[in-house]
Amino acid sequence: MTQKVTLVRLAAVVLGFSALVAHAQDPLASWNDGPAKQAIVEFVKTTTTQGSPQFVPPEARIATFDQDGTLWVEHPMYTQVTYCFERVPTLVKEKPELKNKEPFKTVLSGNREAIAKLSTNQLVEILEATLTGMSVDEFRAEAKKWLSEAKDARWKRAYTELTYQPMQEVLRYLRDKGFKTYIVTGGGQDFVRVFAEQTYGIPPEQVVGTVSGTKYGYDKNGKPFLTKEPKLLLNDNNAGKPEGIHLMIGRRPVAAFGNSTGDRQMLEYTKAGDGARLAMLVLHDDAEREYAYGPAQGLPNTKVGTFTQALYDEAKKNGWIVISMKNDWKKIFAFEP
Amino acid sequence: MTQKVTLVRLAAVVLGFSALVAHAQDPLASWNDGPAKQAIVEFVKTTTTQGSPQFVPPEARIATFDQDGTLWVEHPMYTQVTYCFERVPTLVKEKPELKNKEPFKTVLSGNREAIAKLSTNQLVEILEATLTGMSVDEFRAEAKKWLSEAKDARWKRAYTELTYQPMQEVLRYLRDKGFKTYIVTGGGQDFVRVFAEQTYGIPPEQVVGTVSGTKYGYDKNGKPFLTKEPKLLLNDNNAGKPEGIHLMIGRRPVAAFGNSTGDRQMLEYTKAGDGARLAMLVLHDDAEREYAYGPAQGLPNTKVGTFTQALYDEAKKNGWIVISMKNDWKKIFAFEP
Repeated sequence: MTQKVTLVRLAAVVLGFSALVAHAQDPLASWNDGPAKQAIVEFVKTTTTQGSPQFVPPEARIATFDQDGTLWVEHPMYTQVTYCFERVPTLVKEKPELKNKEPFKTVLSGNREAIAKLSTNQLVEILEATLTGMSVDEFRAEAKKWLSEAKDARWKRAYTELTYQPMQEVLRYLRDKGFKTYIVTGGGQDFVRVFAEQTYGIPPEQVVGTVSGTKYGYDKNGKPFLTKEPKLLLNDNNAGKPEGIHLMIGRRPVAAFGNSTGDRQMLEYTKAGDGARLAMLVLHDDAEREYAYGPAQGLPNTKVGTFTQALYDEAKKNGWIVISMKNDWKKIFAFEP
Repeated sequence: MTQKVTLVRLAAVVLGFSALVAHAQDPLASWNDGPAKQAIVEFVKTTTTQGSPQFVPPEARIATFDQDGTLWVEHPMYTQVTYCFERVPTLVKEKPELKNKEPFKTVLSGNREAIAKLSTNQLVEILEATLTGMSVDEFRAEAKKWLSEAKDARWKRAYTELTYQPMQEVLRYLRDKGFKTYIVTGGGQDFVRVFAEQTYGIPPEQVVGTVSGTKYGYDKNGKPFLTKEPKLLLNDNNAGKPEGIHLMIGRRPVAAFGNSTGDRQMLEYTKAGDGARLAMLVLHDDAEREYAYGPAQGLPNTKVGTFTQALYDEAKKNGWIVISMKNDWKKIFAFEP
């Protein structure tokens, strides 16, 4: 082999990485060209190009994402609530005294009409009974097992497959550009942590959620463990989202993504900072490929992931971008043909 | 220039970085050779060498550090408590009704004997009044200003200069080996966040501390802000440390560093995990270069950073390493000649 050939090969190795990057595919391939995709690309360009007047230093590149309805399907019911209901038979095996006690009796009956009529307090009672009282490790094992077996009724797929491909692309794109991506969810922090790393590439320490306290103690062998307690520390919805962001991150995000009225304050808080800011809301307007609900823009009303007309108007007024699932997304799920 | 020369130069560029690393200086240069330094080096080697039976994947490399007395000086009084006392005159200007009210009146008197006799409840009242009630941004600005001006009485230096050089080396060494370094402090989370990035290279989202809630609201122009509320969410001392670690990190650390009885549970929790674990305690046994207090090993007793003999015995029994400031540290502060 001549020196010239060796030199060319060595140079090829050195230059290979930048060549690969230059020829990379569109990082937002599942997005149709339009104002939503354009807003994301523009925001990333303006905040990450050295010398740009709106350049954001890498350590301040914080992007927060609601989960239910923003990163994965939340209809007909939040996945975690389904988990809690499906945990009730196991719970009753462990605590037989609950079998004939409401609201557990109704859940066990399987009577959908009666279940739909449970009060908020009764729902909270079910959530508390199924999400607390066990050790952190036991909870993780139980939730992991359920997630590996349970299937959504419509797509007959694991819930963790029902994530939105376009949002997965946004997560990756932002991380490739030096952003730290966080989940800021109304769902349980420990529940979402079980699958966030594998499903979204988001580690447990970057999951902010509704969270209850734990209690440190020792087992009979003197080994320490933490028990999940029914003591609410943070309801990570509405005003709780910026409060949770301050608690867990301590910086104001520069980009935030949501889909419901519960995300309003997070988006306001994000936009209130100086410099370039990106605030986006996913509108579920695709009954055919996913679901359609609002009630914004005349879409059917819902209690799960409510997107009011007032929120829509606030978005339009303040330069938040509303993402139309129907028009902005070429593809919704990775498993689509 | 011949092709051979070009080739050699190109190869030199490619290989340059690893050569630099190979010839790097001792990363723990301020440590004397001895069991403490050896334990750190061994732990890093065994957890970060690919193929080692105790290899820890990068995402699980979590190391937690107490702050007061572990990373910086805590005697004669925790710096944050000094901050709170020195804030009282400003507070009284804003709220003149406090001027003749206890415990503020005593603090304003400057009578050290009377101040030393304040009850715990009175201390809590002072902390609450000086650390809450303002916006998160106002608090940050106030604390930052104070830290830039205040001087420790003994060394006549800014408090942020009173960090231990050997521990700064451990922080950097662990980060260079892929660890995420966290502060887990009994001090206020927001207070420590003000200087942790600049002082330790630890970003706000990696500071876990004693933390109160915030409240989201709007100013008269409709701009959102967060107010610091006197509602304790977590007392990050003793059992609160593993609880805070679960809340904020969601993973068990593989290495933990402390110096007092308040760090016991964090070290127990860290050591209770599988595989290689490192648990270390700084013993303040150097009255000449810093301070000497215990009461472990016959050192003078103290209420600030108490290190009991029981903790010392637990450490020895469980393979935690006690760091002797006197014997293990060549140098304590970066500013030493």
